[in-house]
Amino acid sequence: MKNHILVVGSLAYDSIQTPFGKVEKTLGGSANYFSVAASLLSPVRVVGVVGEDYNQTDIDLLAKRGVDLSGMTKAHGKTFHWSGFYEGDMNEAKTLKTDLNVFESFNPVLPTLYQNSEFVFLANIDPDLQIKVLEQVKNPKFVASDTMNLWINIKKPSLLNLLKKLPAVLLNEGEAKLLTGCSNAISASKEILKMGPKYVVVKRGEYGFVLAGPDGFFMLPAVPIADVVDPTGAGDTFAGGFYGYLSSLTNFELNTINLKWACIYGSVLASFTVEGFGLTKLSQITKDDMIQRLRFFEQSTKHP
Amino acid sequence: MKNHILVVGSLAYDSIQTPFGKVEKTLGGSANYFSVAASLLSPVRVVGVVGEDYNQTDIDLLAKRGVDLSGMTKAHGKTFHWSGFYEGDMNEAKTLKTDLNVFESFNPVLPTLYQNSEFVFLANIDPDLQIKVLEQVKNPKFVASDTMNLWINIKKPSLLNLLKKLPAVLLNEGEAKLLTGCSNAISASKEILKMGPKYVVVKRGEYGFVLAGPDGFFMLPAVPIADVVDPTGAGDTFAGGFYGYLSSLTNFELNTINLKWACIYGSVLASFTVEGFGLTKLSQITKDDMIQRLRFFEQSTKHP
Repeated sequence: MKNHILVVGSLAYDSIQTPFGKVEKTLGGSANYFSVAASLLSPVRVVGVVGEDYNQTDIDLLAKRGVDLSGMTKAHGKTFHWSGFYEGDMNEAKTLKTDLNVFESFNPVLPTLYQNSEFVFLANIDPDLQIKVLEQVKNPKFVASDTMNLWINIKKPSLLNLLKKLPAVLLNEGEAKLLTGCSNAISASKEILKMGPKYVVVKRGEYGFVLAGPDGFFMLPAVPIADVVDPTGAGDTFAGGFYGYLSSLTNFELNTINLKWACIYGSVLASFTVEGFGLTKLSQITKDDMIQRLRFFEQSTKHP
Repeated sequence: MKNHILVVGSLAYDSIQTPFGKVEKTLGGSANYFSVAASLLSPVRVVGVVGEDYNQTDIDLLAKRGVDLSGMTKAHGKTFHWSGFYEGDMNEAKTLKTDLNVFESFNPVLPTLYQNSEFVFLANIDPDLQIKVLEQVKNPKFVASDTMNLWINIKKPSLLNLLKKLPAVLLNEGEAKLLTGCSNAISASKEILKMGPKYVVVKRGEYGFVLAGPDGFFMLPAVPIADVVDPTGAGDTFAGGFYGYLSSLTNFELNTINLKWACIYGSVLASFTVEGFGLTKLSQITKDDMIQRLRFFEQSTKHP
């Protein structure tokens, strides 16, 4: 029987400017990037909220990939809208405006069917809501969360409480440093392991990832991409590839070799996202494209 | 017959402050870091200038490792002194003061014996001087240069002229971006290859390196080190390990597999430098320590 992935996160419109161009209200949000990536490998279920302005074509995009959207609710008001830009090396998004809109009162309730999801990803929403979702799932095989600076700053006790309950956490390098007060991703990973999770994945953008766990470290740089036009969503895409791979395993076990491969699939899929604005590139790729890039990644990073 | 490495660069005293401590006038300079690293693997010859304040113990440190210092001159005045600090993630040194002192009128002249050196490293000195050194060596097997922002800004034509003559160049990520106007190390590498060198190595500090050449990219992150106390000299140490490995080859050929291994040895040795202030840690390690860390690096970065 096939495993199912449940993702709970944001469905959004983003307005993005980079040195390579500008887009207005393009489809975004952690749950969208995650789902488009993960659905290449495994069935995905989404819990999220959209506003009355959400386009049917954006629903169709996920539905066509077999993503189950019965957990998506439409609320009065507008869809979450983020507006930001990147400069210079594009390593950090600068926020111009965040309109939470209907996302402000997001209260994730899982449809009955979703409660048996084997793989659960708690994207970077309020840790109190992440805990609430966790309480609704029955006996999942694997759960991990993401987070963001805002929650580390204003809801650290809830976040630490959540981390105690999870086998793994994925977060970016800046978040890992903020959470621990450490000056690098290696020392930060070690500290986060002490907070409860068996594994931590620190996402480093163009510099790849650090996986830390009981067998030490596993690290690789990102897939070499010369024409990075928009890094938005790369981290959520990584999580999608990571989960897509794990959930595709017939006999999943939480071990280092499986998580290494998951990080590799995450890296491979994230490398497509950065090649286009928003979801434009990622949503067009096939499994063959993925396999080809996986080979390219191996060629570029395999020890001689 | 054994190959010999010639390095031309700075011999200096550094005053450094990091979040982990502070040192006054500790031994530094590109040629010192390079020599200590390279001499673990191959014989090294140094051309550089020091002042009357240069300590005999600092000369002994290199001499004890078999480094040939007959190309080192002592001039009237004081030794080059750099003073700087690192904050936060320590990714960038902030300069407080640069006293060039005797280094200001450095005019590298090679002893006759040195002119037959098989491996030549032009550390980050004025590109006009780098060219002058290049003109003094006879039929070397391999030459590469480093550079720095200052020369890219004020001597770009000389630097571009030099790059046309070299099989390889090593520089850090910020320098690669400044030289090319590119926003990432991948696109920057591609542009630098168009400037002449067959291979380019972009040093990324805690994020490792990018090797680019006729066979594409080879990239790895840095060796995972939790307790980074002072990153000063890591790039020059990388170059030292890189050269030490290449020069140790009985039948050197300029090819991708050899340069991949050179980058790995560079990464391994640089990982010791950052564990102590100045040269304190690097100068204490043995070949066994190096081999052990090489295994650790492979474990941490080898594809499953």
